[in-house]
Formats: sequence, structure tokens, C-alpha cells
Amino acid sequence: MKAVSIETGKASKAKVHGVNRGISVFDLVLRIVAIVGTLASAVAMGTADQALSFSTQIVNFEAQYDDIDAFKFFVIVNAIACGYLALTLPFSIFHIMRRRAGKSRVLLIVLDAIMLVFITSGASAAAAIVYLAHNGNTSTNWFSICQQYTDFCQRSAGSLIGSFGAMAMMVLLIVLSAIALSRS
Amino acid sequence: MKAVSIETGKASKAKVHGVNRGISVFDLVLRIVAIVGTLASAVAMGTADQALSFSTQIVNFEAQYDDIDAFKFFVIVNAIACGYLALTLPFSIFHIMRRRAGKSRVLLIVLDAIMLVFITSGASAAAAIVYLAHNGNTSTNWFSICQQYTDFCQRSAGSLIGSFGAMAMMVLLIVLSAIALSRS
Repeated sequence: MKAVSIETGKASKAKVHGVNRGISVFDLVLRIVAIVGTLASAVAMGTADQALSFSTQIVNFEAQYDDIDAFKFFVIVNAIACGYLALTLPFSIFHIMRRRAGKSRVLLIVLDAIMLVFITSGASAAAAIVYLAHNGNTSTNWFSICQQYTDFCQRSAGSLIGSFGAMAMMVLLIVLSAIALSRS
Repeated sequence: MKAVSIETGKASKAKVHGVNRGISVFDLVLRIVAIVGTLASAVAMGTADQALSFSTQIVNFEAQYDDIDAFKFFVIVNAIACGYLALTLPFSIFHIMRRRAGKSRVLLIVLDAIMLVFITSGASAAAAIVYLAHNGNTSTNWFSICQQYTDFCQRSAGSLIGSFGAMAMMVLLIVLSAIALSRS
């Protein structure tokens, strides 16, 4: 009986380790997807630039991402998040090899939660401005600029997609780390 | 020797349980602080309203939070977060009594992470608009409205404090849950 229970215990331990390894592999994949998302967002917004065709020699009508501070913040935050995610890849690989790594998982949850706040704040601030650029606001006399700068508006709105995707990945990463912690 | 090791094991188990109970009590306190923060933010922004003294009988110059969609979103998100935090108080009390509750802690981490995204997005979108209202933007011809609506601007900027405080509390709550999970 004892031998059987030891065997069963070993089998269930191996199963738990197998599941944890699966979680760690998924963690690595999510991080790579989030790197691509934040990088694409930073590049798409950073290269958004439109000169209007009726520009005169005296006054130049041109819209660039760094005219609007929220967009500048968005590019900086996404670049930082991309760098952070690249730096955490070794941790993720370490977790695939060593399945019991409680402390480093807790550290990753802490850093991931802080980075989630950064990415979300950048994306939301940019989204608020993109919304304003599209719709304008009559009460405050801020008029829509998207009738003139159509390409710039489309580019800046599109660049939000990668960042919002990365946000979802970060939430999933925190959840996966929590599940792995509760199983180890 | 065996008796000694069992005793030591019991003592260390009791210590771990004591630390986890401390974490759970801290979790409860943080949730209450975050409830106060989100409620104060929602109320402060929701009651922000300023009529200018030179209002005529024909045209009424008045600024309210629901003139700006980002502020409406901010109030809704803070109200939802406040309700969510109140609903999770029983979980927190349950964790103080039962120190080994892996599954409910993982569930709380998932929900807390999602709520952190909501609070952060509301606060950042509102912050982007408050920044614009204060500084304006010459490239897009959006002028500062804070020279006219001073009280409204101060109130809306002040209401961000509670929400940013709640954001910090939510990050701490996720970290505490992760530490408790790694110890149980």
C-alpha cells in the first residue's frame, strides 16, 4: 500500500511539474508576442508624420507624434516595456528548466504588475487624445483634427492596437505566474 | 531527534501561518483604503461643475464633468472599482481565517489585475485631458481652458489623486497575494 501511494505521489508530482513546464513555455511565448506588440506600437507611433499638401513656404502644416505629449509618453513607455520584456526572457527560460522557482516568480509578478501599469497608462492617455482628435469637443472648443490629418490620425489610432494587445498579454502573464505559484 | 525536528517543523509552520495572516490583514486594510480612494475620486469628479460669472441669459458658460467623455469614463470606472473592492472584502476576511486558500487567492489575483487595468486606463485618460486642459496644444489649436474654468480644472486634477492612490494599492494587493501564494 505504501509503495503504491509513493508511486501515485510521484506520478502526481510529475504531472504538476509537466503542467508547470507547459505554463512556463506559454509564458515565454506570451512575452515574445508582447515584445512584438510594444515594438510595433512604438515604431508605428514614432514614425507617424504627415505634411499637408497646402503647406506654404512660410507656414508649414505638419503633424508629428512629438507635437502631442501623450503620444511622446506612449512611445517612451512602449520602448521601455519592450526592453523590460526582452530582459525578462532569460527568467522565463530559467522557469522552463527549473520548475520550482517561487522567489523569482514572485519577483516577476511584481515587475510585471508595475509594467502593466506603465503600458496601460501610456495606451490610455494616447487613446484619450486619439478619441479627441477624431471627435473633437464642442464644450471646450477643441476641434477634430482628423479631417485634415487623416493619415496621421489613422496611424496613431492603429499604433494603439499593439499596445492594447501587450496589455492583455501582461494580464495573462500575471495570471500564469500566479497559477504556477499555487501549484508548486 | 525526530521529536525535535517535528517540533521545529510545527514552529516554522506556525510562523508561516502567522506571516500569511499578517499579509491577509494588510490585504484587508489596503482594500479599504482603495475603496475610499476610488469613491473619493468618483465623487470629486462627478460633482465637478463650474458656471462662469459672465454667463448670459442666452448662452450659458458652464463646465461639467460629463462634457468630456474621458471624465465620464473616469467616474464610471472608479464607481465600478469601488463596488468590486467592496465585494472582495469577504474574500479578504476569509483569507484571514483560512490561511491556505490557494484557489481563491489565484482568483483574486486575476480579478485584481483586470481591475488594475480598468483603474489605470480611467486615471490615465483623465490625466491626459487634464494635462491638455492646463497646457493646451498649439500644434492642434486646442487651447487651455484652465484660465477660465480654474475651479473646474483644480477639482478634476485633484480627483485624480484618489485614483492614482488606488492604482498603487492594487499593485500592492497583487504582490501580497503572490507572496502569500508562494508561502502556502
